[in-house]
Formats: sequence, C-alpha cells, structure tokens
Amino acid sequence: MTTINAWAASEAGAKLEPYTFDPGPLGADEVEVAVTSCGICHSDLSMLDNEWGMSKFPFVPGHEAIGTVAAVGANVSHLKEGQTVGVGWMAHSCLHCQQCLKGDQHHCAEAQGTIVGRHGGFADRIRAQAAWTVPLPDGITPEEAGPLFCGGITVFAPIVDYGVKPTDRVGVIGIGGLGHMALKFLQAWGCEVWAFTTSPDKEEEAKGFGAHKVANTRDASQLQALAGKFDFILSTVNVPLPWADYLAALAPRGRFVNVGAVVEKPLEIPAFSIIPGAKQVGGSDIGSPAMVATMLGFCARHDIAPQIETFPFDKVNEAMDHLRAGKARYRIVLTR
Amino acid sequence: MTTINAWAASEAGAKLEPYTFDPGPLGADEVEVAVTSCGICHSDLSMLDNEWGMSKFPFVPGHEAIGTVAAVGANVSHLKEGQTVGVGWMAHSCLHCQQCLKGDQHHCAEAQGTIVGRHGGFADRIRAQAAWTVPLPDGITPEEAGPLFCGGITVFAPIVDYGVKPTDRVGVIGIGGLGHMALKFLQAWGCEVWAFTTSPDKEEEAKGFGAHKVANTRDASQLQALAGKFDFILSTVNVPLPWADYLAALAPRGRFVNVGAVVEKPLEIPAFSIIPGAKQVGGSDIGSPAMVATMLGFCARHDIAPQIETFPFDKVNEAMDHLRAGKARYRIVLTR
Repeated sequence: MTTINAWAASEAGAKLEPYTFDPGPLGADEVEVAVTSCGICHSDLSMLDNEWGMSKFPFVPGHEAIGTVAAVGANVSHLKEGQTVGVGWMAHSCLHCQQCLKGDQHHCAEAQGTIVGRHGGFADRIRAQAAWTVPLPDGITPEEAGPLFCGGITVFAPIVDYGVKPTDRVGVIGIGGLGHMALKFLQAWGCEVWAFTTSPDKEEEAKGFGAHKVANTRDASQLQALAGKFDFILSTVNVPLPWADYLAALAPRGRFVNVGAVVEKPLEIPAFSIIPGAKQVGGSDIGSPAMVATMLGFCARHDIAPQIETFPFDKVNEAMDHLRAGKARYRIVLTR
Repeated sequence: MTTINAWAASEAGAKLEPYTFDPGPLGADEVEVAVTSCGICHSDLSMLDNEWGMSKFPFVPGHEAIGTVAAVGANVSHLKEGQTVGVGWMAHSCLHCQQCLKGDQHHCAEAQGTIVGRHGGFADRIRAQAAWTVPLPDGITPEEAGPLFCGGITVFAPIVDYGVKPTDRVGVIGIGGLGHMALKFLQAWGCEVWAFTTSPDKEEEAKGFGAHKVANTRDASQLQALAGKFDFILSTVNVPLPWADYLAALAPRGRFVNVGAVVEKPLEIPAFSIIPGAKQVGGSDIGSPAMVATMLGFCARHDIAPQIETFPFDKVNEAMDHLRAGKARYRIVLTR
C-alpha cells in the first residue's frame, strides 16, 4: 500500500492540516511524482475557499508541482524514474477527442484539474497522466519552475495563440504573479513592452521584469493619451477595468486578451469600441502539454524564471496567509 | 462648371429633395462616376437622422454607388472612361500612413466616408479617390452590385480576417440585409451554415440563402442546446443579445464577431465565458479596396448577389420609408 502525506483542508476556508491517504494502484497511463517543490497560485486559494463551488473536501491544493518521477504506469515508456518533471492545472484528459487529438488537450471536455476532484501537490507525492507530466529541460531551475506550470503558461499561451509579433507594441495590465511573467516573456519576444499598473511603486520593478515603459492607470488621462498605440494588451487583473479606454488604446486589428478572473460583473464592451479597427477581445486558459514544453524551452533559452519567495512545506498556512494578504512578490513556492 | 444633380436632406430627418451643386475641379487622384444605381444601407438612414452626430447638411446619402467612369483625374491611369465601377462606405484615404501602406486603407485615420462630409451616391454623379473606386469584374450584374460595397464587404471581411475555414460550423445572427449575404458567402465558403433568427417565418428564405439549419432564438433553449458547437458566429443585429448563451455556443477557440451597431448598451461578456476555451469576441468594419475586389471575384465565381428590391431614383423617399419601416427584403437599390 502506498501512502501519500499531504496538506489538506477539511472544509471551505479551513487551515491546512497533515492528511494521509492511499491513492490506490497507479493507473497504467499515470505517473507518480515525488514532489520537491510546489508553487502556490491564487486559484489554490479560491478552491480552498470553494469560491467556484467545485471543491471537494478534504481538499489538497497545489497545481504547480515539480518533482522527480517516482513510478510510472504500465503503459508509460517515455518517462523514466528520477526524471525531473512538472504538473500544472490539468492532470488528465481523454486523449482521443477532437480537442485532444488536435493538440488542445486543455480544451478536452473530460479534462480533470489537478485539484478538482483530485489531490494536488501540497504533498510528498502527486499523480498525473503521463501526457500531462512535462519534463523540465536543461537550464530550468526546478525550484523556480513551478509557477510556470499554471501562472506562466496562462500568460505565455495567449502570446502564441493571438499571434503576437516581435514588432508589436504590447501592454500588460497588472504587475503581479502573472503580469511579471508576461513582461519577461514579451521582453524576450522582442516587443516594445508597456506595463499598466495602478501601483506606481511597482514601476521600477516592472522595468526590471522587462517593461520598457510604465503607465500609471490610476490616472485615466495617461491611458487615454495612448489611444491607437497597442497591438496587444494582456490583462491579468480580476477587477472591472475602463474597458472602452483600453480598447481605444488598441491599434487597428489590436487584441485585448483577458486572463483575469473578473467575477464581479461582465466585461462591458461597447460595440463601437471594437467595430472600427476590427478589434478583438479574447480570453485564454492555460495551454496544452506541448505548449508548456515550448514555454519551458523558451524560458531556458532566455533565462526566464518567475520571481519567487519560498516557504517550507510545513509553513504552508503562513504561505497561504501571505498570498491571501496580497503580499506575494511575486510568486510563492513551497520547498523542502 | 460641372453640375451634380442629387437628392439631399436639408436637416436631420428631412425628406430628400432635388439638390444641385458644383463639386469644383476634379482632384488629380479622383474619379467621377456617372451613377447608374445605388444601394440603400441602414447607415444612410442613421446619417440622414444625424444619429451619430457627424452628418453635415445638406446631406446627400448613398454609399453603395455603381456607375461608369465619367472622368478621371490627372494622376489616374488605371481606370478608363466608360468602365463600370463601385464606390462604397469610404471614398478617400491618405495612402501613405502605416495602415494604408499595409493594405488596410479602411483603417486610415484620415479616411473619409463617402457620406461623411462628402456628397454621396443619391445623385447622377459621385466622386471618389481612384483607390476607392473598384472596378466590377465580369459576371457581376451592376444593379445588384451596390449592396456588396457596404453591406456585403461588412460581412465578407470578417470571414477572411477571422480565418473561417470551409470545415467550420458557422452561424449568422439576423437574416436581414447583411445576414442574408453572410449566409450566401458562408455557404459558398464550404461551411456548415446555421441561421439564428427570431423570425420563424424567415426560415425557408434563410435556407434559400444558404443556411443548412435554422435555430429559432426566440426560444432560448434552442440556442442553449447548441453549446460548444460553433467555430464562428457572426452577429448582424443591432440589439443586445444573450451574449453568454452565444459564447457558450462557441467551440473552443471559437470567434464571435459583431458587426451590428448595438448602441443601446455595451456587449456584456462574462470573463468566464471567454477564458475557458480561449474564445474571442471581435468587431469588424468594411474592408480595404483589395478585399472588395477579392469579394467581387468570389461573388462572380460563385454567382452570389444580394436579394434586392428596386426603386427608381425619383421614388427615393418611398424607398427610405420602406427601409425605415423594416420592410426591405433584403436590400434596396435605386435605379434609373
């Protein structure tokens, strides 16, 4: 019998307590990973609080897990014990539907989130389907890699999918866990990179992450003065924005992509803010395993890593409180 | 001295009366067209009523004008007297800015609308820049061509620009002046074509235009039952829609494009209706002269023409009333 030692909440909003469970036999297409570190994402908090109504308790958070392959299922031949891998938001998909077959496994209707009805990476072991267990290439530091697997891919995928070009002028709204990684990616992408922030104290840091320019959007006139300038704007914040001003800031054929979990109210998009100039408002959700691998290769080549703070696993509740207080600079990782 | 005999409104909402004016010398890069027919677009009515606050009076409507080249400016060598051409929503752009040079002349910041500070095609003559005066290819009936120059290009351009593929399942919202042309284009494009309408009496006609299937969206459950099915949905209506239901009807990576002048309130787009599946909401505005020429070639090859009703020019007020009453089936053209 296998035993996994995890940290779990017994009910919504509860403190995480040691929790031991038997995961049963390893599935033929699964991999068991000995977790060495695990990033903490804001959605771990949302799930812990059952904000989205889909959490199951006891709840083990953690979907930015890095570790070494401890065991592979009977049908897994391409991963080997001891290999360093990561597991992100998704842990399983059907692999035979249209979405899976065309390489959009993250759009599989049967896809299983790593912490949605499954036990996550705040544990000594985690299991995931081999297809969703992505090897780290050389040049990636395991401890820093976790946040790439959810936060990182969330901002990397839209850069690829919405066809951002190195010649584009681009903007990133929100300089936090996601936004700071977006700045790094876009700087390496070759773009003219702007940061939009309401926290002027983040200006210097934003420039350190790759922003060439910073606009203080607490001052509406700064944004309004940028009308027509941007080919691509990526919003990583979860609050309503002056949508019409941001759409006005787009050049013709510009794309505004929102990855922020804005739940307070819908995005309000005036028809005439997108008709002239044929502008677009899009969403984006993580990425496929192939996209994750592509991102990791890009990071290795450009020496890109998230800026992290580390907490030992047994200080997990302090780490969660730090995140809840909005103090993470910029991404928290639990380490052994 | 040249004299142009036109139909003009002296103030917002006024009846059209005969109006004669001297257009002055023909510009070196301009063409004068002897108008043989002119489509009527809903925006002629909006401009006549000064709904958008940018009309100048006396106001001569008409921006779907077809005719023969009567004179060319000193620098125009590629158009010849007697050639059949059309003039659409735009009549002039700078031709040297970034947008013009990359072939998006319709996104030129200096572009002049044919009826915005200029006199339109409800006249015996109209003038436009040569670049915006597009020859009709063989196989296009001049009398039917007018509506292609504004209504037609408005729905054709997004099919191209948003990368619709012949293998896509697509839907068109609103079976009117624009929607019926969209059905024809998409049917010829090779797609599986659905019409969304709240007028069940239009079902047979929609099928005649190219719809393979028709959904009655007055019944919300019909739309809701189509969740996840569409690669592309084009909305041609100008009223608020059940946006979330339509976005749910998109497949992953699906695109919802709105060309309808919805002014009552903004499109309300829940963040979680576009994040999962990386969906897009886009706008689109007419097209470049090259896109118009491409569309005309496609129409000629596929025998596509708008369904029109004709009125003689001297019944222009009756024609406008017919449109205002929502009775146009499906596009009105003034003829000699």
